[in-house]
Amino acid sequence: MTFTLSKPASQPAVSKSSSTEYASLKQEVKVTFNYDVHFTRDLFNPDNPLLAQVLLATGEGTKKAIAFVDSGLPQQTEILAQIQAYSKCHSYALNLKPGSTLIAGGEAAKNNPQLVENLQKLISDAELCRHSYVIAVGGGAMLDLVGYAAATAHRGIRLIRVPTTVLGQCDSGVGVKNGINAFGKKNFLGTFAPPTLVLNDANFLTTLDDRNWRSGIAEAVKVALIKDAAFFDFIANHTEALVNRDLDTMQQIVYRCAKLHLDHIAGGDPFEMGSSRPLDFGHWAAHRIEYLSNYRLYHGEAVAIGICLDSTYSYLSGLITKQELNEILNLFKALGFRLYDAELSSHFTSPEHSRSLFRGLSEFQEHLGGELTLMLLATIGQGLEVHQVDLDKYRLAIMMLKEADL
Amino acid sequence: MTFTLSKPASQPAVSKSSSTEYASLKQEVKVTFNYDVHFTRDLFNPDNPLLAQVLLATGEGTKKAIAFVDSGLPQQTEILAQIQAYSKCHSYALNLKPGSTLIAGGEAAKNNPQLVENLQKLISDAELCRHSYVIAVGGGAMLDLVGYAAATAHRGIRLIRVPTTVLGQCDSGVGVKNGINAFGKKNFLGTFAPPTLVLNDANFLTTLDDRNWRSGIAEAVKVALIKDAAFFDFIANHTEALVNRDLDTMQQIVYRCAKLHLDHIAGGDPFEMGSSRPLDFGHWAAHRIEYLSNYRLYHGEAVAIGICLDSTYSYLSGLITKQELNEILNLFKALGFRLYDAELSSHFTSPEHSRSLFRGLSEFQEHLGGELTLMLLATIGQGLEVHQVDLDKYRLAIMMLKEADL
Ligand SMILES: NC(=O)c1ccc[n+]([C@@H]2O[C@H](COP(=O)([O-])OP(=O)(O)OC[C@H]3O[C@@H](n4cnc5c(N)ncnc54)[C@H](O)[C@@H]3O)[C@@H](O)[C@H]2O)c1
Ligand SMILES: NC(=O)c1ccc[n+]([C@@H]2O[C@H](COP(=O)([O-])OP(=O)(O)OC[C@H]3O[C@@H](n4cnc5c(N)ncnc54)[C@H](O)[C@@H]3O)[C@@H](O)[C@H]2O)c1
Ligand SMILES: [Zn+2]
Ligand SMILES: [Zn+2]
Repeated sequence: MTFTLSKPASQPAVSKSSSTEYASLKQEVKVTFNYDVHFTRDLFNPDNPLLAQVLLATGEGTKKAIAFVDSGLPQQTEILAQIQAYSKCHSYALNLKPGSTLIAGGEAAKNNPQLVENLQKLISDAELCRHSYVIAVGGGAMLDLVGYAAATAHRGIRLIRVPTTVLGQCDSGVGVKNGINAFGKKNFLGTFAPPTLVLNDANFLTTLDDRNWRSGIAEAVKVALIKDAAFFDFIANHTEALVNRDLDTMQQIVYRCAKLHLDHIAGGDPFEMGSSRPLDFGHWAAHRIEYLSNYRLYHGEAVAIGICLDSTYSYLSGLITKQELNEILNLFKALGFRLYDAELSSHFTSPEHSRSLFRGLSEFQEHLGGELTLMLLATIGQGLEVHQVDLDKYRLAIMMLKEADL
Repeated sequence: MTFTLSKPASQPAVSKSSSTEYASLKQEVKVTFNYDVHFTRDLFNPDNPLLAQVLLATGEGTKKAIAFVDSGLPQQTEILAQIQAYSKCHSYALNLKPGSTLIAGGEAAKNNPQLVENLQKLISDAELCRHSYVIAVGGGAMLDLVGYAAATAHRGIRLIRVPTTVLGQCDSGVGVKNGINAFGKKNFLGTFAPPTLVLNDANFLTTLDDRNWRSGIAEAVKVALIKDAAFFDFIANHTEALVNRDLDTMQQIVYRCAKLHLDHIAGGDPFEMGSSRPLDFGHWAAHRIEYLSNYRLYHGEAVAIGICLDSTYSYLSGLITKQELNEILNLFKALGFRLYDAELSSHFTSPEHSRSLFRGLSEFQEHLGGELTLMLLATIGQGLEVHQVDLDKYRLAIMMLKEADL
């Protein structure tokens, strides 16, 4: 029996150098990821059924898991013990494996590649299968680190994020990215990997220091500015409650901000294959001054300054009014943010200088790929993308911010 | 102005411990990946327009790229020089960056995590953006290594795979996975990351040694057995041509095998979120004896033995007939494969023993997660999944194979 394999019916697609021609094969791969974000308090209290319930909802039987807890949490060891107790109490749902441990948190954790390997080894040693769970409890930095290790072990083991900061609960923790810093570049290594679950426990927010409490609010202002004018007004009307650390107000902000982020990711380009990244409003300068300040500035603090800069630039470009600009700057002031940092000005005359702020523009473009695409403001509640910038206008904007910050 | 954020209309979803309740947010993220697989000869000959054409088809303008070439290719340095010449000649399409270099190939390359970091650093140093290209030219092992580095740099830079082995062109190179070995586990670290392009150049196959030429054919037999009886017959009718290294026959096999793999991936569960992996027929034992033999056995050689084992087991389970089993074993014999290796038997009495073959079953289950799911044969051309195995039947199958191999 002979059998001939299909040859192209029509014209050969390409090269003439082959004697036999084979039609090109076109491949389309579609992947759907689902995850729920739950809001609760006292997540690891054995009386709270949420964790056990959501684990059982993913399929029958006890789920193997390993837990990593941010060592920067004041209540770190208690939490680890609580998770262990939870597992004992709800053993029909959760089987916590030995190897669960405290993990360094904060930005420094993202600067040490050895930590990724340590985490991958802990996952391997625990003999977890790909349907087992890594439970990560901590700030955005620690979640990014653990997320990267989980996404690469077994080509991706299930991840439950329990963000413990405002920024984690309203932004990074509900997103689809992870990563660490490498070769002097922020988030140079990482993957797109949606979590399996996100569990936001508001109680964690009570132990944040004032800077970290405030810092995450910058991301809420960011998403309000580009998408939701009513949310901007809500924040502007609740600055006092926020400064006074009213948890109920903060929960409302976290919820709305998380929802806006989730909707944007689902409706947009979740794995960022294009050149546009609307949620990174204010971030080109933010990433740059975070780095230039050697992470003296927190992410949200740098984002606040980056937003003020791009808002001022939007005003100078005739996009928003002076009154709108003032509303924005006043909101950040009322929340206790600085509008300016010396890193904005260091060596800012030549974009080629190794410490120039403007290298942030090319790094931003390099990370996303393709054409430079920056988000500016058309009005409060609506962003506008541009592909070119005028550096002199940025220099003027920086001087204006320095004044406004006084 | 006051503004109240949405609260759940119906019953609160979960925990009672919070004063205010927030409805859970359900997230669905859909991602589509497209990539073409082209077949050609003399890909890097400046007279062959294919590469320049496909680069331009992805968008206007010159594309930045870095090329990595498997140092195990006999023509390695010439190929690197050819790619450089191609870039000069087609500079309107391709801008090859400094840093392009030879990279160790073969399984050893997947056992050295330092190589991943070296590659990531080369990509960083070349200042490639996320829309730039990594061109990887080499065997399946080197493509897995480079693919992992490319998938994690900038959270995924574009990858062009140019597989140079039979196995690479018909199986691994057209798939969506990458990875390296770690902590004694095959492919423990890696990601799911579809390439941007696959360019199969048949000329590379002419320099393979006989073992590597033969080895990749095992994957074609594998996919024929579980999906395509006519293709099985085609291979069985062309064993002589294959043994005599007829390139035209091999190209037909590569084409059909690649297509079957692509169709399976597109139609199935591309990122393996479930517990089933039909394309891994024969692979639980194959991975195990590859490892036990310290990679003395090549992947395809181990796969041939694994298929013979699971086919014999299928016969012993009353699924396929004796005649079908003989057809399968005879095909592998005619192609020059061994049907048995001593690693199958080493310490095979107790599954707990550290060198037991049967640890391959639990490792397979651990990697995929969930229930044990093994592919067996219902008949030639059709697989059948089972969730339980009888180790004594496997012991008998091993003895039968030892006999048959004589
Ligand atoms: N993956 C993404 O999509 C994404 C998005 C935005 C930001 N990020 C990243 O998130 C990181 C910033 O995260 P962050 O703002 O949460 O800061 P962080 O994770 O650095 O945490 C700040 C500090 O607070 C400590 N901490 C955490 N929870 C606490 C609590 N409940 N009480 C007291 N202390 C606590 C931490 O140990 C750390 O020392 C950055 O690395 C940024 O790049 C990632
Ligand atoms: N990612 C996937 O989906 C997937 C699927 C199947 C297998 N794999 C992996 O692929 C690897 C095996 O790949 P392989 O069979 O291509 O072997 P290989 O990559 O180990 O190559 C075998 C040897 O041949 C050399 N070589 C490569 N091309 C050559 C050529 N044209 N001429 C002469 N020599 C050449 C290599 O340098 C190497 O020394 C394994 O690590 C396996 O795990 C991956
Ligand atoms: Zn941010
Ligand atoms: Zn294989």
